[in-house]
Amino acid sequence: MIGIIPITGVGEIKRGDDLAGMLAVAVAEAGAEAGDVLVVTHKVVSKAEGAVVELPDDDPEAYRRLVETEAKGIIRRRGSLIIAETRHGFICANAGVDRSNAAAGTAILLPYDPDRSARRIRDRLRHQIGMELPVIISDTFGRPWRRGLTDVAIGVAGIRPILDLRGGTDHMGRTLDVTEVAIVDEIAAAADLVMGKASMRCAALVRGVEYVEGDGEATELVRPPEEDMFR
Amino acid sequence: MIGIIPITGVGEIKRGDDLAGMLAVAVAEAGAEAGDVLVVTHKVVSKAEGAVVELPDDDPEAYRRLVETEAKGIIRRRGSLIIAETRHGFICANAGVDRSNAAAGTAILLPYDPDRSARRIRDRLRHQIGMELPVIISDTFGRPWRRGLTDVAIGVAGIRPILDLRGGTDHMGRTLDVTEVAIVDEIAAAADLVMGKASMRCAALVRGVEYVEGDGEATELVRPPEEDMFR
Repeated sequence: MIGIIPITGVGEIKRGDDLAGMLAVAVAEAGAEAGDVLVVTHKVVSKAEGAVVELPDDDPEAYRRLVETEAKGIIRRRGSLIIAETRHGFICANAGVDRSNAAAGTAILLPYDPDRSARRIRDRLRHQIGMELPVIISDTFGRPWRRGLTDVAIGVAGIRPILDLRGGTDHMGRTLDVTEVAIVDEIAAAADLVMGKASMRCAALVRGVEYVEGDGEATELVRPPEEDMFR
Repeated sequence: MIGIIPITGVGEIKRGDDLAGMLAVAVAEAGAEAGDVLVVTHKVVSKAEGAVVELPDDDPEAYRRLVETEAKGIIRRRGSLIIAETRHGFICANAGVDRSNAAAGTAILLPYDPDRSARRIRDRLRHQIGMELPVIISDTFGRPWRRGLTDVAIGVAGIRPILDLRGGTDHMGRTLDVTEVAIVDEIAAAADLVMGKASMRCAALVRGVEYVEGDGEATELVRPPEEDMFR
């Protein structure tokens, strides 16, 4: 049995707010238990870290320039949509520049180093409430070939991002040869089910998942360009 | 709060087994409630429907021919890996032909019509245990750009596959302009967290998700080729 518990009580976040401290209080109030994974949407992290820039609401050209500034590389363009590689290596729409849930005249960028952001939140929880919980920073990405968005992990701390079952056996005794599960992406997607896009919920606890503790980074999820058939 | 409850007690499945009847019993024993979504991995559906073919274990050429037979189109090839479009329109590795969890000398294909398979299970639950639950048939797909696999929906019944928030507003009052959530894929990914790749668990109940009832088909998740930048 897995439980996904929404974290409430963290309100609107602005630059310099002590997000990690607020999360620690809210996580304790939500009754966190050892083994829970804390998922935090990146938008509150970006806001607290000041990764918010001015952007006129009706200026597609300014938006395009901002996306190009944020991008390390452009993968595809169609109309105003740019599929870009971020400095972290993630490939997503508009290099992660997002105006939803941003104040008028602004846009939200990805955190500068989402793995570091995740580690900071994890460390703060350890110090403030004495709990060592893995932390996932999530964002909402589109996919080629499939309509609709799903949440994925862009930062992790304390959890191995990929569950490597290669070399294991299935229940027929046959060797599982290609089975690396992107478990942090599945956890991020699961957490999104209680968060929603329009709500004030910015975090959730996911309880009961069998994960491997460790110091992985979300950038391990990036498929190396030489293995990637779709760049 | 969302709960994900594994369904146990459905054993090894072979052609002609009354999978829907077995699921109905197991779902009732698991204490299903109105509003739960039942997620079933496609492999048991394929096995019950006889979508299993003979395939020598060490014959890459026979494997390649089988994949090409199952594919409607080939998107990319690299070595023995073929990214193909299935007859349903899904784009995935090896057109869904899979040997893990298959008996020696065999391979499992995708169900012929996974939406129909989902509707049959839903109808059977209604008749046998008097519960009207949405049903999702899941499979494990890779992604371009990101390592690792996640579960997605390949068949649905009784649930709208995409939650369309376009035209809604975020908590800042700003219109959400591009926010279609692939909610059935997020539910499938969440369910995978209790199922695992090597276990005998073939189904889960997902409780507490806000979804829209309806008669959508998983093929609605396929991005139309003319909108797709990565074919």
